[in-house]
Order: sequence, then structure tokens, then C-alpha cells
Amino acid sequence: MKKLNVGLVGYGYWGPNLARNISETADVELSFIAERDPARRNLAVKKHSRTKCVSHYRDFILNSSIDAVVIATPAHTHLEIARTALERGKHVWVEKPLAPSAGEAEELCDVAKKVKKVLLVDHTFVYTPAVQKMREIVASKKLGEIYYFDSIRINLGLFYPDVNVIWDLAPHDLSILQFVLNKKVKSVLATGQSFARNHKENIAYISLELEDRILAHIHVNWLSPIKVRSTIIGGSRRMLVYDDLNPDEKIRIYDRGVKDFSKDGFYRSMVKYRTGDTYAPYIERKEALKIEAEHFIECIRKNKRPMTDGEVGLEVVRTLEAIDRSLSQGGARVEL
Amino acid sequence: MKKLNVGLVGYGYWGPNLARNISETADVELSFIAERDPARRNLAVKKHSRTKCVSHYRDFILNSSIDAVVIATPAHTHLEIARTALERGKHVWVEKPLAPSAGEAEELCDVAKKVKKVLLVDHTFVYTPAVQKMREIVASKKLGEIYYFDSIRINLGLFYPDVNVIWDLAPHDLSILQFVLNKKVKSVLATGQSFARNHKENIAYISLELEDRILAHIHVNWLSPIKVRSTIIGGSRRMLVYDDLNPDEKIRIYDRGVKDFSKDGFYRSMVKYRTGDTYAPYIERKEALKIEAEHFIECIRKNKRPMTDGEVGLEVVRTLEAIDRSLSQGGARVEL
Amino acid sequence: MKKLNVGLVGYGYWGPNLARNISETADVELSFIAERDPARRNLAVKKHSRTKCVSHYRDFILNSSIDAVVIATPAHTHLEIARTALERGKHVWVEKPLAPSAGEAEELCDVAKKVKKVLLVDHTFVYTPAVQKMREIVASKKLGEIYYFDSIRINLGLFYPDVNVIWDLAPHDLSILQFVLNKKVKSVLATGQSFARNHKENIAYISLELEDRILAHIHVNWLSPIKVRSTIIGGSRRMLVYDDLNPDEKIRIYDRGVKDFSKDGFYRSMVKYRTGDTYAPYIERKEALKIEAEHFIECIRKNKRPMTDGEVGLEVVRTLEAIDRSLSQGGARVEL
Amino acid sequence: MKKLNVGLVGYGYWGPNLARNISETADVELSFIAERDPARRNLAVKKHSRTKCVSHYRDFILNSSIDAVVIATPAHTHLEIARTALERGKHVWVEKPLAPSAGEAEELCDVAKKVKKVLLVDHTFVYTPAVQKMREIVASKKLGEIYYFDSIRINLGLFYPDVNVIWDLAPHDLSILQFVLNKKVKSVLATGQSFARNHKENIAYISLELEDRILAHIHVNWLSPIKVRSTIIGGSRRMLVYDDLNPDEKIRIYDRGVKDFSKDGFYRSMVKYRTGDTYAPYIERKEALKIEAEHFIECIRKNKRPMTDGEVGLEVVRTLEAIDRSLSQGGARVEL
Repeated sequence: MKKLNVGLVGYGYWGPNLARNISETADVELSFIAERDPARRNLAVKKHSRTKCVSHYRDFILNSSIDAVVIATPAHTHLEIARTALERGKHVWVEKPLAPSAGEAEELCDVAKKVKKVLLVDHTFVYTPAVQKMREIVASKKLGEIYYFDSIRINLGLFYPDVNVIWDLAPHDLSILQFVLNKKVKSVLATGQSFARNHKENIAYISLELEDRILAHIHVNWLSPIKVRSTIIGGSRRMLVYDDLNPDEKIRIYDRGVKDFSKDGFYRSMVKYRTGDTYAPYIERKEALKIEAEHFIECIRKNKRPMTDGEVGLEVVRTLEAIDRSLSQGGARVEL
Repeated sequence: MKKLNVGLVGYGYWGPNLARNISETADVELSFIAERDPARRNLAVKKHSRTKCVSHYRDFILNSSIDAVVIATPAHTHLEIARTALERGKHVWVEKPLAPSAGEAEELCDVAKKVKKVLLVDHTFVYTPAVQKMREIVASKKLGEIYYFDSIRINLGLFYPDVNVIWDLAPHDLSILQFVLNKKVKSVLATGQSFARNHKENIAYISLELEDRILAHIHVNWLSPIKVRSTIIGGSRRMLVYDDLNPDEKIRIYDRGVKDFSKDGFYRSMVKYRTGDTYAPYIERKEALKIEAEHFIECIRKNKRPMTDGEVGLEVVRTLEAIDRSLSQGGARVEL
Repeated sequence: MKKLNVGLVGYGYWGPNLARNISETADVELSFIAERDPARRNLAVKKHSRTKCVSHYRDFILNSSIDAVVIATPAHTHLEIARTALERGKHVWVEKPLAPSAGEAEELCDVAKKVKKVLLVDHTFVYTPAVQKMREIVASKKLGEIYYFDSIRINLGLFYPDVNVIWDLAPHDLSILQFVLNKKVKSVLATGQSFARNHKENIAYISLELEDRILAHIHVNWLSPIKVRSTIIGGSRRMLVYDDLNPDEKIRIYDRGVKDFSKDGFYRSMVKYRTGDTYAPYIERKEALKIEAEHFIECIRKNKRPMTDGEVGLEVVRTLEAIDRSLSQGGARVEL
Repeated sequence: MKKLNVGLVGYGYWGPNLARNISETADVELSFIAERDPARRNLAVKKHSRTKCVSHYRDFILNSSIDAVVIATPAHTHLEIARTALERGKHVWVEKPLAPSAGEAEELCDVAKKVKKVLLVDHTFVYTPAVQKMREIVASKKLGEIYYFDSIRINLGLFYPDVNVIWDLAPHDLSILQFVLNKKVKSVLATGQSFARNHKENIAYISLELEDRILAHIHVNWLSPIKVRSTIIGGSRRMLVYDDLNPDEKIRIYDRGVKDFSKDGFYRSMVKYRTGDTYAPYIERKEALKIEAEHFIECIRKNKRPMTDGEVGLEVVRTLEAIDRSLSQGGARVEL
């Protein structure tokens, strides 16, 4: 099989993980890495001796041997780089969020559609075996009717002063929500606060109204002393807890729920509930980026639509924009 | 010392705990228990052989030997019973919430003030050694400036179909918040949903804006497969986690925080943080109700104001009302 | 149905739990409590107003209305009290351990057999729903062939200076082992140490060889900073972990085991294992002593043999004696 | 500074970690990797493009530019390779255990002494920041007099059929014990069992008597459904728990202990204990192998004795031999 040649743009925080996974994918050659910072570029040279390391993506983008471009630069540069790549006939992988505004994200979707190339947004969690299993469980109706989705993603984190915690962390929760429940967000409402001088929120609480009366809530926080990565999905028949920090039992299904909503008796006219077994399905241990890299290559070779294509990325960006609007209006409900 | 005679009204879910603690307090006699349900009354007879068990509080309220009345009936009955007791010169202990509306709560405060009797609202958590320790820690400025207060109180719970989860569970969080931070709530905003046929919320997310730009958030939920009772208080110098389900280390103080908000460097202009030791202070194991019963008796004997007096209870009820108003307006911000 | 009259001897640490459960059993009257210590006896009077509280068991033992005697006194008094009761035609419940020596335990078994009365030894854990479930799981062969049984029972405990940690804690593990695996102990070997001046061990490690090459191990410790109550049962097909401190998932079954013991390949000729789902069966929440009290009464009424009869108690005492002998011989293997 | 040239022998399970850390150490060149298996050697070529990858250590051992040799091959090959290297004037790093017998380990120590070269045994845990902190805490007498050391190292592990679990896992516990407590092992006693056809133990319980009446115990197990890496050190003043799987709080110090061993009172003549705060010191996050590689290089350059030199390795091997002897004698106590 003919090898695919890939160029990577950006070797900052996430770039090294992409470089490693791309270079380990079968029948793929990581031909170029573009990185402006000389110290970071030196690191790339050390780790990837067979890859040409250049300072700018323009140094390889005209090269016709390049089949695909992977973009791991800040969001405000995505449109320019991705459009350039697509227009030169390259397939494109873009870091999340797809773009810093719905307008730019839409433009990218349009270009990709026009040139008929693959546009994948790196919603990494969608490619984890745990999240794939959750989608399968929800689709199987094992949980019954879905009531709510509650997600907490907090830790004491290094953070960039030019972006708020929502654009940094919430794309993970939003993409999981979208992939697992497969329901549209109808409106959002958010509160938050910045405790730094830069006035960008470092803690936020987001309520989302989904189709079918499903309530979703996301807590993202860069100033938590403890690290929590936990999601509860409440259903009418069973409930699920996803704890990404548990190495052995990431998903637990609780055979618990409300038994009886009827009112009966005099004093303790209480709603009764049902408690049964708990079950932790075996989750394969495979790195999400490896699965995602293989999926990207397969989409290119077989001309398929990625699970996280531009449209999916656009929907997340639209939701992020709506959340920002709610925040700037003191928590007003914003329809999508 | 002359014994104080106490009458208890209501022997439902919480009444037995009150009866046990009152009857074990020194120099106190639990003289009467009033309970309408014959089966529950029989239980009272079995457990408290020296106490007269009657069917209605009017059966003992005129008795001049009774010094104090403890009311553990549904909230909508509090005003009538408590006013009757106060007007007959009895000291009063009322279950939380003080009343089902701010109007009724105010009326009770007024009556208590007029007759100069003790009115204690049973905000039990305020009397736990853990919450008292938290107040002490916050007051000592060990945490620095307080940034946020995040509280989760969820489980799969029996619930009353005639009240929502907020009026049942949030009084705990609101009274802890009030006692520990000692800051006024300025506005609230809440989303929630009912997944039962009674249209009372069984899950809710509440954002509160406090004085001094402090952000607070409360998640209460009767439909969670797992039980969580956890509060994070984020401060500028240290952070605190209170886990009420941890039998040995209810409070942990993390010597962690943001080190530097300044922007520096080219690529990774990140905010830095500081990580130090963790510390779990020893928390005395003493039942809160025991401490609270002793406090109530001491307030009666020494003519003192209870830590959780009518005004404190009124403030919680006002906040609950504002939360309900926000919910009914789809999450609009409601000022207090 | 005619009520059974029960007399309790000893109202120390465990007595109050027995008194409460007996008095709450249907068609049973707790007629007498005998307790030498006046302060403890006063407590009994307060809690059990319908029960006659006396200072010595001889004050009620001749009373022909008494059907059964429950003995919660130190082990060295068991023989005298239990024999007296049995010989007067009473059924007997004795605290664990049955007796301080196999000789005395045998004597008690003989007396009970001769008078044809029920003799139950209070191996409380055997009556917990979790341990009953474990027996059922092992009997069902779900775990395959049993390989090992590993039990840890440690905490920072108040302790009696006149008994070692083995006679205090290990009866729990030995009775669980016996009930769940249903295999005889063939030999024991123990090491331990006393860090107090009384030269009674407060920490011990016990290895037991059971029938069918099963290896068992028990760690009991009164000087541990953390509380652990955990047992692993390793089987050829599945493995089980019993964590008595987990309120929600006391038992977990791991579908894990060795897949392949064969030697293959050059470098990494490793034994392979298999990892599958994890499963926590629902365990009923019912107090063991309540179940045990009902079982005792049922054995009396229906003339049945208790699950934990004298023979079972004798076997545990024999094992405890063998462990003591091993300890005193510096860890020598002692056959049973 | 002149670069040191290092050759690595063995690129199996552990070799890649050594290769990575050596190649990232300042002023060190990983010049050679010797690996017999062609597939593993290919992996080495891919990861270390500047290193010559050969099939046998003899392919580089005569090369005079090589300053040090790192040996990561099975234990039975250590003597031959290490002696060859030492006799050619190379410094040597050997995987644990130093040798498969005390005789061979002694021979290696003698050779190293004669040629005056550095001989480091890779007791990796000794170089973790957590174990270093534990040694510091014990040395500071904060725990008071040391009573016992209890270590559990269990999981469901791939295992080599030609070695028992003791020689694989217990060197970790023995080297930690030795380094942290700094006491000699006086005698050992062990029980174990093999549930495979190869008759090598895959589960073992080891009791050790140390100087000063300290009791130590180690549980190693390849057939546990759960992974545990936990050590308790009990002292007269405080106690310490080391949980290597806790990412944030590896060490906790409990201000708990026995308060009073005296006998007092009638009924509950119990020993009393003291409970105070708990404290988790901050532990630096640094890879042990990185620290160890720097230490090895420093010992070479400054002619220093490594913290884990041949003598330390020999003592561990002597203890392992004694444990094996006890096992083969059915658990007899074996003096060292």
C-alpha cells in the first residue's frame, strides 16, 4: 500500500502526542513538522530523526507529496492554515476547538465540502474505548429514557491567560455529550468567574437544555485542589457513572432507579426506588489518539466521513459561543 | 438544677433522632410526644416509656410545666404550631426549613422577638464538628481570600412527592455556606428538571453570587446512582475539600493555589500554580444533634441567641424562594 | 404463638446490641439482663424498661419461665454459665469465642448434645448478607477451583490487655473462612509481636493450609492507623473481593484469571491472563444480629441445628489454640 | 565535560526504560544496545537512531571507549556479563536481583572491589522521591520507635514461568525495608503456593524478624484481581501509610498511636489510643530512573559509592535465598 505523507503544524503541548501516534501508524510517514519556537523544534528533531523539521507550515504546504496536514496550533490560526491546506488538496486534522468562532468554523466546513477532502476535528475523547462503550450502552436502551447528563472536569491546571476555561475544557464534555446522547443542544445558560487579573473565566457552571427534556450540566474549573473527571448519566431504568481517572473500572452501570412515583399512604408518601447489581464492563486499554489516527487514515483511503467531522466540530463551537454569550449577559438563557 | 420539660411534635422520619438526643441531654425531661399516626406513636411509646405519647400537640401545649417545644412536622405546619407555642411562653426548636415562605418565616421571627423566647432552626450541619472547624479555618484566613464554594449533595433518595429537591436538600448547603463564609447571597440562578409525574424538581443546579465576588454553586439530586456529599472551598492561598462521607478525614486542606497570573514567554505563557502538603485536621466524633440539643438548652438557661436563630432560618428561606422563582422563570437571575 | 422468654448475661460492649435485637424479635420477650457493673446495669434499665435488670445470672437462671440464655461475658466464664443454663433446660447463645480452650469448648458441646438443647455460637459475620452471598458464589463454582483466601482485619483499636489480638479478631476471619469455603484447616503457622508491656500480641500474621491445597492468610492488627476489612478469594476462573467497609459494593467479582500456563516463545515466555467485566451483586441491607436472632429462635421452635452450632465454634477454638501454639514456638507449623 | 559512553545489554521489558533515561541524561551517550531477539532489536533501532544496536554484548564490550555497562538481562546471566565488564574496566549497573544466588552476588562484589569500579544494583524504588521521604521521616524519629513494617505488592501480573513471585516482586519490598528502616534482617519465615503447573510460587507471605524486635511482613502475589502497592509503618508515636498507586498523596502520616498501656477500671480495662491530624507531605514528581541514572553518573565521575551498591544488593539476595529455604521447608524459620 502506498504510504501517506503527513505534515504536522505545531509542536507545543499536544503536538508531540500527535507526532508520536502518526509516526507509529502503519503505512504513514510523518514527513514534516513545522514549529516556530526553536527550542520546541529542537525537541522535535531529537524525537523524530527521520522527519524534516521546519519553522513554518508554508515551508512544506506546497509540497505535492504531502497528503494530509495535522494542525496543532492555537485556535485563532486554524482557519488560515486549514484553508490553505484544503485548497492545496490536503486532508486536514484540526485540534479542538475547530475555530474560535462559528463563522470561521462554518467557513472551514464549506471549504472542505467544496474540495471534497477529509476534515477531522480532534475531539480525542470520542475515540476512547470508554466513550465508545458509553454510546453503545445508551443506544442499546439499557439505561431506558435518558434523564440527565452531569459532567465534572476540574483540576489545578496550568492555563493560558488568553482563553477561558470553557474554550479549553468544555469541548471535551460537549463532544462526549453529543457523541454519547446524540441529541441537539437547544439552549444554554452559564455562570462563571475569573479570579485572575486577565478577566477570563477560570471556573464555570454550564446548564444545557437538550432535546427530549434532557438536562445537562458541565462544571469546568482550573482552580480545583483535586482532580475530578466524572460524568453521571441518569436514565429511567439504569444509571451510569464514567470516571476517567479510575484505571480499572472507568464505567459502572448501576441497576438503580425510581420504582414508583405514585402517592400512597399517610405519613411517608415517599417515592420508592429500586437498587440492584452494579456492573463494570471491561474496557479495552488502547490509546485514543492511536485509534483516532487510524480512523483518519481510513477515512482518507476509503473516502469516508470522520466520526468527528467539521459539522460536529462546528456544533461544539456554536455551543461554546452561546455559553460565552450567556456568561457575558450574567447567566441569561441563550437559544441555539 | 431545675429540669426543663420538653414536648416534641412529630415522630416521623427525623423525630426519633430528636427524641433520643433530647432525652439524653442532662437536666432535660422529654415529657410529651405528639404524633397523629397511631403506628408511629406506638413506636414512640416503645422507645420512650417515661414520655407521654399523645395524638395532637394541643394535648400538651396548654400544660404550664412545658418549657420548650420541638417541632418536627412538615414545613407548612410550622407557623401555626410554633406561634401557638411561643405565645404560650414556650421556647421553640423548628425543623428546617423554618417555614414554606419568607412571609411565614418573618412572622415567626416577629413573634419570637415579641415574646422574647428562644427560636432555634434545626440547621443540623452547622452543629457538626466538621462544619464548625471549616468556619474556624475560613475565619483564620488560612485559605486567603475566598474565591468559590462548590457543593454536591446527591444520592438515590426516597422523596416526598409534595416538595422539590431544593427545599429538601439545599437548606443544608445554604446553611453551611452562610455559617462558614459569613457572606450574604446577592442573587441566584437555577436550572432543574422533574422526571416524575408530579412536576416537582428532583434535580437542580443552583448558582449563587455572594458578596465580594464569591461564586457559589450547589448541585442537589435525588436521582443519582451514587451518594456524594462533597464541598470544595477555593481560596487564594489554600483550598479545602469537605467530604462528609469520609469517616476519618472529613476535611482536607490543600496547600495549593495559583502562583503567578503574569504573562511571560512566547509559547507556553501559562499561569503557574503551587503544590504543597495536604493536611487533614482531627475532627472530633460527636453527634451534631447532641451538640445542638445542648446548645438549645444553654440558650434557654442563659437567655442567649442560638447560632441558628430565626433570622438565620429566614435568610435560608428567602434564598430558597428566590431559587424557586428563578426555576419558574427558566433560570433567570433573581436578586435578593 | 407462645412468647419465648430470654435472659441476657453481660451488658458490656456487645450486650446492648444483643439486647436491642432480641427485644425487637417477634414473639420474644427479653425478660432479664444480668450485669455486675452498676453503671452498665443502669444503662440497661434506661434502655429496657420492661426487662428486669439483676446483678448476677444466678438471680434468674432457676426461673423456669426462661427458655433461653444469651451469654455476652468474657470467654473464661462461658463454660460455667452455659453449662448451668443447659443443664437447667435452657437453650444457649454464646459470644465468640465459644470458650478459651478446646477442652472447655468440647465439654460445652457434649453437655448441649446430652440435654438436646440448641447451642449457638455468635459468629456474627456468618449471618451478614454479604458472607451468605459469598458462600453461595463459592458453592456455585462461579470462581472455579479455589486457590487462596486472604483476609485483612486491622484498625487502631481499643483492646483488652488480657487477651491477644488473635482471640479477639481472628474468630471473625476463621468463621467466615469455614463458612464460605467449607474446608478443614490442616495446619497453621503464625508470627506476631506485642508492642505493649503485657506481652499479648497486638499484631499477627497467620498462614493456614486448608484441604485441597488452598492457602489462607489472615492479618489481624490493633495498631494500624487505617481501618481495613478486606478479603480476597482467588479462584481459577474468577476472583472475589469482599470489602466490608464499602457501604454500597461489599462484594465484587472480577472475571479475571490466568489464561494460559504454557511456556511459549523466546523472550517473553510469560504466563498470560484474562481480564473481563467486574460485577457487584446487590447485597441486602439487613443487620446480621437481627437475622441471627431470628435464626436462633427458629432453631429453638423447630428443633433445628444452628448454622453456627457448638461444633463449628469448637473448630474455631481448636484453630485459635493451634495458632497460639505456633506463636509460642516462634512460628513453627502446627498440625490440627 | 567529557561525555560518558554507555552500553546497554538487554532490550526486553525493562531495557527500553533504561535506554530512554540514559539517553536523556546530560553528558552521557547511549552508544550501544545489545539485544539477541531481532524483533526487540528493531524496536531499539527505531527509538534510538543514534545508538548502534548489536546482537551480543561481546560486540561492544572490548570497545575501550565504553565507560559503563547497564545490564538488563535475566538474573542468571548477570555474573558473566557484569564480571566481563568490570574486568575490562567498565562501571556496571545491574538489574535487580543482583544475582540468582548469594554466592554469585558475593563474587560480583569482590570483583567490583578489586577493580575499584562502581557497581550499582537497580533497586529502583529506593530512588523514588516517596521512598526517600520515608527514610527521612523515619530517621527524624517523627514516628517514634518503629514497631512494624507491613507491605503488600499484589496484582494480576504477566509472569515468567521460570522464577517465583518472590524473586520477581519481593526485591522491591526488601530494598525499601532496608533503605527506610536501616535495620538488619535476623530471620525469615515464608509460606506460599503455586497454582500453575510449573511449581514456582505465584503467591507468598513472608514474615521477617528485624533488629530491635521490629516485625516485618510482605505479601507478594501475581494472582490478585486488584492491584495494591501499600506499606504501613507502625511507630510508637505516629504511623505512616505509603500508597504507591495514589497519584497525589503517596505518603500519609497519621498522628495516631497507643496512649496508655496501663490497666485501669473494672469492666473496660482497655488500652487507650490517641487520634490526631493526618498529614500528606508534598512529594516531588520525578521519575526514579532519571534520579538513579544521574546518581550512577555522579558516582562514576566523583568516585562515590552508590546508595544501592553491591553490598546492598547482596543483602537482598541473601534474604531471598533464606525465604526460598523457608518455603522449601514448609515455613520453617531460617536465620540469616
